[in-house]
Amino acid sequence: MTKSVVLDHGAGGGMSQELISDTIASILGDTYIGEMEDSALLELPGRRIAVTTDSFVVEPLFFDGGDIGKIAVAGTVNDLAVSGSRPLYLTLAVVLEEGFALADFRRILHSVRDTAASAGVHIVAGDTKVVRRGEADGIFLNTTGVGVLERPLHLSSRSLRTGDDIIVTGYLGDHSIHLLSQREGLGFEHRVRSDCAVLNHVIADVLDACGEGVRCIRDVTRGGLGTVVNEFAQASQAALLLSQPDLPVRPETAMAADMLGVDVMYLANEGNLCLVVSPQHTEAALKALHGHDETKRAAVVGRVVDGEPGTVRMTGTDGREKTVDLLYGAQLPRLC
Amino acid sequence: MTKSVVLDHGAGGGMSQELISDTIASILGDTYIGEMEDSALLELPGRRIAVTTDSFVVEPLFFDGGDIGKIAVAGTVNDLAVSGSRPLYLTLAVVLEEGFALADFRRILHSVRDTAASAGVHIVAGDTKVVRRGEADGIFLNTTGVGVLERPLHLSSRSLRTGDDIIVTGYLGDHSIHLLSQREGLGFEHRVRSDCAVLNHVIADVLDACGEGVRCIRDVTRGGLGTVVNEFAQASQAALLLSQPDLPVRPETAMAADMLGVDVMYLANEGNLCLVVSPQHTEAALKALHGHDETKRAAVVGRVVDGEPGTVRMTGTDGREKTVDLLYGAQLPRLC
Repeated sequence: MTKSVVLDHGAGGGMSQELISDTIASILGDTYIGEMEDSALLELPGRRIAVTTDSFVVEPLFFDGGDIGKIAVAGTVNDLAVSGSRPLYLTLAVVLEEGFALADFRRILHSVRDTAASAGVHIVAGDTKVVRRGEADGIFLNTTGVGVLERPLHLSSRSLRTGDDIIVTGYLGDHSIHLLSQREGLGFEHRVRSDCAVLNHVIADVLDACGEGVRCIRDVTRGGLGTVVNEFAQASQAALLLSQPDLPVRPETAMAADMLGVDVMYLANEGNLCLVVSPQHTEAALKALHGHDETKRAAVVGRVVDGEPGTVRMTGTDGREKTVDLLYGAQLPRLC
Repeated sequence: MTKSVVLDHGAGGGMSQELISDTIASILGDTYIGEMEDSALLELPGRRIAVTTDSFVVEPLFFDGGDIGKIAVAGTVNDLAVSGSRPLYLTLAVVLEEGFALADFRRILHSVRDTAASAGVHIVAGDTKVVRRGEADGIFLNTTGVGVLERPLHLSSRSLRTGDDIIVTGYLGDHSIHLLSQREGLGFEHRVRSDCAVLNHVIADVLDACGEGVRCIRDVTRGGLGTVVNEFAQASQAALLLSQPDLPVRPETAMAADMLGVDVMYLANEGNLCLVVSPQHTEAALKALHGHDETKRAAVVGRVVDGEPGTVRMTGTDGREKTVDLLYGAQLPRLC
């Protein structure tokens, strides 16, 4: 058996079937992928669903705290969960570069399987394409998720009200700093690991505890906290005021960000939530979050205030207020 | 405004938002993509659904009869429809190479929109990633589809019975020959165009006409008819006998296939169905198929016979029987 991906693995014939049955289906262990029908046929527990899609082009593929397989499952599970839905089903589409090591592919599939199991979701359909050497970089994944909306909630970035508290659940920027440092060999990669995590169980606990007291939740990924809070402010036409001293940032991350000339406010995370809750529910939300290892550092970092609609301000460590802009670009590709 | 894709288009900041709102959402015209929430929230007309996913890495991106946008929508719509479901929702995930022309991206998005409209499906969620120059080849798409199962049918490749007829709905191999010829500049690309087509309306008509008389339907894409009939034979442990003189093949396609040393039986199509129907329903199925331009050449090309389970034989143009093998590989990448 060949040790790396060849073009025939994507040609749809016997070699494709072998890759699907011997590698993909045998690792993922789910029925539909092995069945070779064109669609998975599924029964839902309700008619109101959430759907989300994400491609993953992260580099490097393997890192401390996760890999592209974990990030692909966790990212889509988290996107479903922050909408208030219970994640049920994921599809997995793979683009492989000719020559990619099958051992690495298997390692990624094991990670997909384990992460899906920990999130309680099933991989129900798949697709594999192979492109020639040089036409892709190793492996790209796409996961698309379906969740069911069982709670009578309408979480929305448009629903912020003056007085609401803004909570962040973990250290900012660790995922990005770890990957950037690993790419460049800066040394920080041994001191800061990726925060990549599945958060649907955490979110379910918060919603159980607070119900309609939660205005909205966002997975703080690409664009970082700075982008999320600006999107909230714009969508709700609200004014947000953050407190820089209350932002959870690891000293090593701050140091690395300084060295790299990047701002932790805009760095991607992969296991960090930003929640907006009514002040009556803040304590309950924090209690629920502190019950999980991934979110044990959750803290209030700001609130919705009276002020110019659509803007975000931050009280700095020096006590002065400054504007948190929506960054136009960042030039940091392939962190997810 | 820049004329080609830059890394910041994928960074999640203001430039990403601009690409989404000014280009993607403004062309696709669907609400959810513009809303910037993490998931689309949807109401289904039923609880039984079909889900399928497919990535598209076709080269060239534009061809006579379609482009990567049309193929990405039609392919997933057809996969949903052949399962007996009514296609409703599609997600669209894009991986762009830095430097890709935005004019080409817009052209592809227009094609996505028009094809979705003709199929009657909505693009409900999207994602855009940008990789550096040389890390992908222009643009890769992924579409994932959700359909609703409203008919009390169980179409399955396991349900074939002796005496069933095998129908093919169009010329074999045109899509592949057109693309291979365009890539190599062989001249056939002006005489044979891609058959890329949306077929959910056709399939609905056949199911209306025949109901449970349809055993199963397959979109004859990657791997070609030879692969589909072998999968049928294996899944049902049935013996299939095809008639080569009855296979619809355009003379120009046969000539080009000869020149290229490829077998039309294994060439990918993008608007061609293989149906297995009970003999009592063959006439009704053909009548329904002949009512649509895309399937007006539909014909019976073989049947399920008494014979060795899991095998496919074919009566050649010379009257002799031969085995139709499952091809192991084909070395023809990026036809879809």
